[in-house]
Amino acid sequence: MTEKAIQDFYPDEVAICYGCGRHNPHGLHIRTYWDGEEGICYFKPQPQDTAFPGFVYGGLIASLIDCHSIGTAIAASYEAEGREPGTEPQITFVTGTLKVKYLHPTPIDTELVLRAHVKELHKKKTIVTCSVYANGKECAQGEVIGVRAPWDLNLA
Amino acid sequence: MTEKAIQDFYPDEVAICYGCGRHNPHGLHIRTYWDGEEGICYFKPQPQDTAFPGFVYGGLIASLIDCHSIGTAIAASYEAEGREPGTEPQITFVTGTLKVKYLHPTPIDTELVLRAHVKELHKKKTIVTCSVYANGKECAQGEVIGVRAPWDLNLA
Repeated sequence: MTEKAIQDFYPDEVAICYGCGRHNPHGLHIRTYWDGEEGICYFKPQPQDTAFPGFVYGGLIASLIDCHSIGTAIAASYEAEGREPGTEPQITFVTGTLKVKYLHPTPIDTELVLRAHVKELHKKKTIVTCSVYANGKECAQGEVIGVRAPWDLNLA
Repeated sequence: MTEKAIQDFYPDEVAICYGCGRHNPHGLHIRTYWDGEEGICYFKPQPQDTAFPGFVYGGLIASLIDCHSIGTAIAASYEAEGREPGTEPQITFVTGTLKVKYLHPTPIDTELVLRAHVKELHKKKTIVTCSVYANGKECAQGEVIGVRAPWDLNLA
């Protein structure tokens, strides 16, 4: 397991994502730890992250799966290229598609654990699957197609 | 177009969703207006809702599609039963699956418009498609399968 999260290596200029940017003071600060086989993320929901009383709202689950899967794709891509995270040229992805299957209501009063795996890794896109666990129970399954993009892409 | 959003009719006890609950002071307050053919939602992102500079993060798009599609499913179901929104027994749905296709980066400096349509309406599940527009351009497409559930469901 790496000591630093992959998000710690994102360039300052783009590390402002509400989901995972370390420079977004209002954001979720999602962090992805890559161990060479899977990306792991730990996240403790806040009381306001509720859907029904006692359970996490689906949009947060989707946000966690999105940013953590993209982080996993980035970490796996550095490894596949035999490079240390953050080395030039920076590797970034944007989300192409996001799918979430909600299996069980996700309790809000416990730390969530997300485990993400690379299903396919291509030059231009990477497919990552991701499961969300609460108290050891799988509450949601996700799949993200990440599309590789230059980090200084002019998105306009 | 109804003057009140469907979320205004949700029972007080469950109107605390971060996405669309009127009683969540920290939440997004997503509102769905049903005109008999489509559900419409207007949403102005805040500066912190960023992904890359100038663009909305994907998790917000997913949250908007989720809550707005569920709201549309609820509104359409009341209509299909020939009842006014909020009449007993209350109609509620939970999200079964959520799919989002990100077509273009979504600008953060403009009001977003979501248009949702009921694709299939069954007794136990409803499928809703939803598009997100910014400045008239379709930036994302979503599909939500909502599963009907009693509003006082003990989810534990």
